[in-house]
Amino acid sequence: MEVFMRHLLSPLDFSVKELDELFDTASDIAANPKKYSKVCEGKKLATLFYEPSTRTRLSFEAAMLNLGGSVLGFSEASSSSASKGESVSDTIRIISCYADICAMRHSKEGAPLVASIHSGIPVINAGDGGHQHPTQTFTDLMTIRTLKGRLDNLTIGLCGDLKFGRTVHSLINSLARYSNIKFVLISPKELRVPDYIRDDVLNANNIEYEEVENLESAMPELDILYMTRIQRERFFNEEEYMRMKGFYILDNEKMKSAKPDMLVLHPLPRVNEISVEVDNDSRAAYFKQAQFGVYVRMALIMKLLEVEKPC
Amino acid sequence: MEVFMRHLLSPLDFSVKELDELFDTASDIAANPKKYSKVCEGKKLATLFYEPSTRTRLSFEAAMLNLGGSVLGFSEASSSSASKGESVSDTIRIISCYADICAMRHSKEGAPLVASIHSGIPVINAGDGGHQHPTQTFTDLMTIRTLKGRLDNLTIGLCGDLKFGRTVHSLINSLARYSNIKFVLISPKELRVPDYIRDDVLNANNIEYEEVENLESAMPELDILYMTRIQRERFFNEEEYMRMKGFYILDNEKMKSAKPDMLVLHPLPRVNEISVEVDNDSRAAYFKQAQFGVYVRMALIMKLLEVEKPC
Amino acid sequence: MEVFMRHLLSPLDFSVKELDELFDTASDIAANPKKYSKVCEGKKLATLFYEPSTRTRLSFEAAMLNLGGSVLGFSEASSSSASKGESVSDTIRIISCYADICAMRHSKEGAPLVASIHSGIPVINAGDGGHQHPTQTFTDLMTIRTLKGRLDNLTIGLCGDLKFGRTVHSLINSLARYSNIKFVLISPKELRVPDYIRDDVLNANNIEYEEVENLESAMPELDILYMTRIQRERFFNEEEYMRMKGFYILDNEKMKSAKPDMLVLHPLPRVNEISVEVDNDSRAAYFKQAQFGVYVRMALIMKLLEVEKPC
Repeated sequence: MEVFMRHLLSPLDFSVKELDELFDTASDIAANPKKYSKVCEGKKLATLFYEPSTRTRLSFEAAMLNLGGSVLGFSEASSSSASKGESVSDTIRIISCYADICAMRHSKEGAPLVASIHSGIPVINAGDGGHQHPTQTFTDLMTIRTLKGRLDNLTIGLCGDLKFGRTVHSLINSLARYSNIKFVLISPKELRVPDYIRDDVLNANNIEYEEVENLESAMPELDILYMTRIQRERFFNEEEYMRMKGFYILDNEKMKSAKPDMLVLHPLPRVNEISVEVDNDSRAAYFKQAQFGVYVRMALIMKLLEVEKPC
Repeated sequence: MEVFMRHLLSPLDFSVKELDELFDTASDIAANPKKYSKVCEGKKLATLFYEPSTRTRLSFEAAMLNLGGSVLGFSEASSSSASKGESVSDTIRIISCYADICAMRHSKEGAPLVASIHSGIPVINAGDGGHQHPTQTFTDLMTIRTLKGRLDNLTIGLCGDLKFGRTVHSLINSLARYSNIKFVLISPKELRVPDYIRDDVLNANNIEYEEVENLESAMPELDILYMTRIQRERFFNEEEYMRMKGFYILDNEKMKSAKPDMLVLHPLPRVNEISVEVDNDSRAAYFKQAQFGVYVRMALIMKLLEVEKPC
Repeated sequence: MEVFMRHLLSPLDFSVKELDELFDTASDIAANPKKYSKVCEGKKLATLFYEPSTRTRLSFEAAMLNLGGSVLGFSEASSSSASKGESVSDTIRIISCYADICAMRHSKEGAPLVASIHSGIPVINAGDGGHQHPTQTFTDLMTIRTLKGRLDNLTIGLCGDLKFGRTVHSLINSLARYSNIKFVLISPKELRVPDYIRDDVLNANNIEYEEVENLESAMPELDILYMTRIQRERFFNEEEYMRMKGFYILDNEKMKSAKPDMLVLHPLPRVNEISVEVDNDSRAAYFKQAQFGVYVRMALIMKLLEVEKPC
């Protein structure tokens, strides 16, 4: 009888029911961290970061250490065998002898998928180019679920670069599975969501959405505001950039028109798209996300390693 | 009731009494390492090294591991979020979700101070530019206290680049708090201690000192000789360099004129300012410093984490 | 009474009897990993990798973690004190205060030897330039011993670059100590084993060997085929390269003429010298080597730290 090994490559790999269970575990971890402090004793996580991403790497490492496990790996390709021309599929076979689970970050889309095919251990996609970054999406969902108490009946504003933003696409895809979701897509015309999101996800599922240019006027109806950065070079021309850059910087003035229990999320790092004055607003949830990210990764590692929940 | 969190940003953040207690703990650790081998179980240290410093980083990591804790972090900025433009204050907020305490090395003066303001966990300054490096100073003091049995009634020679040497300034500042200390400041004229040390520390506290150019003639009266490196480019001109470079290289010949119980310290790395022949002299304490550095960092981590001393 | 500290600098540092014991321990570890999961609790391994080698570094780290110990170190010289001009002998004295054992990789031949002279802890050579890489050789021997059941009475084909290949020379040296060994040395004329191997090892010990150019015709008599890579630039000229490159690529066609229980080994990383189609052949042992490498390094760490075998 062959055993089917689970990996996490895309946010949609987990059903809504599985996600619910995952978030339940994460919530229990948050409430009772000591209970989980040795469940992965003797287990090893390999962090295979072919491109640097300190926040994501350290979040995984903190998660594994919190579970009593240990960590090994590399934080950039220059210190990996990749620089000697080894293929990802050869590397993962070796790593399978060294660790019990791995988190892989790679600049090439699909690298974690290739790895999972040849792997003897569960592979977590920790970001593959512009493609997927499922644990970021899980972190976003966990943050909303915990702080709003639900993942349905929400009006979600997504603001910034909606064309190239990987986290935005994943979040739309994932929230589209819950009921009574409305999206307000706030961006310059040039940076609207791609057609496949509009057609294959939103329209195909009869999900309510509107596309607007102005953040401030969209604020009052939002339950969630998900901010992302717009890189200057993404604007069509300098004139457009000068006209609109202020639209997409969140400050206390704009927060005045938001609901008193609206949440501000951001995948981080932020540069200047959220003014630091907003940090002290109780609705700012972007630093809390980091904490939820650790809990959800702990729950994920436990699930993929098939570790029993302690009682 | 707000809880006041302690950080370590400057050597003077700790009172003489607190230092005494710290060194007492460090001495007990040295004598009974097993007793302390699990006091930080489940705790995590983040080493945030924006510029590389292997010795300091590994000393902190060894300290935390010796206490039964674990470690995560980065060893240079290129593999950190800083390369994506994230501010130190944003990074520390995230790291506060990942670890229980952190040691930060940064090329910019004041970066650890900024971090401490936004941090949810104790911040240890592990060196900020030419500014402060308090655990180096604590290591120096611990070494002297252990091997000489006291931190007062000492004549201390400081030799080399006294103008730019961060460790020298910190050591003068710290030893100035003990009684009956005399400094012999041995350097080329161009590399004498800055005015603020001479005026605000030495003269203001009526501390005895003399400034000399020649190491050899200063040797006989010293209880401690603290060597530092002079970088060639710091000399006023090549002629001066040729005339004086031999003055500041410690060898067996110069050691002959020293007291039989004088100690030689050095913050390391040394290049050639101490001849390797001196390594076998029983008065050479510079490699022993590394061991004291681990003990003192163990005591420091315990203090900042408010871990109870085991009985 | 002085205590004699063991290091591992060359594969020949261990007698055949010691190797037997080492492999026995490694086999017991493979069979009963849990028994060994805490034997190095409280011990620290320093990985001092002055040049990157992810596979080797992670193998050592996995080994130490499997024994319940912990790990610190650096993965390339740029983040080490070496960049500040510190000598290997000074660095090892410091590291001796931080860790209980170390594995050193260095581009300069002899660096681990120099370190061992000044070290307070056991030093394992994890590869020094083109010189030695003893744990690779131990891994090769352990793989053969486990999968063939013996280290004598073997016909071993070594294929590829036999002139510059460090692992090949070490393997010949080590296998030459067992009885009834025959080597088939398969390479282009320009890349034959150096004279000192032919004269001082093979001829001096009356070991049977033949030197051939063609892999395929050598296959039928081999018990072991040890493949290595030939770098294109090593060929005498382009014409030679074009004529012969196919000779040294192992594929399913060539495997047809091999014994049904022949083993294929490779020190990895492979580039294209073994076709991926061979990976599914049951005789392909090159990925299994990685697992044996962890076991043998576990046994080695235990031996050098003089840790008692658990019962």
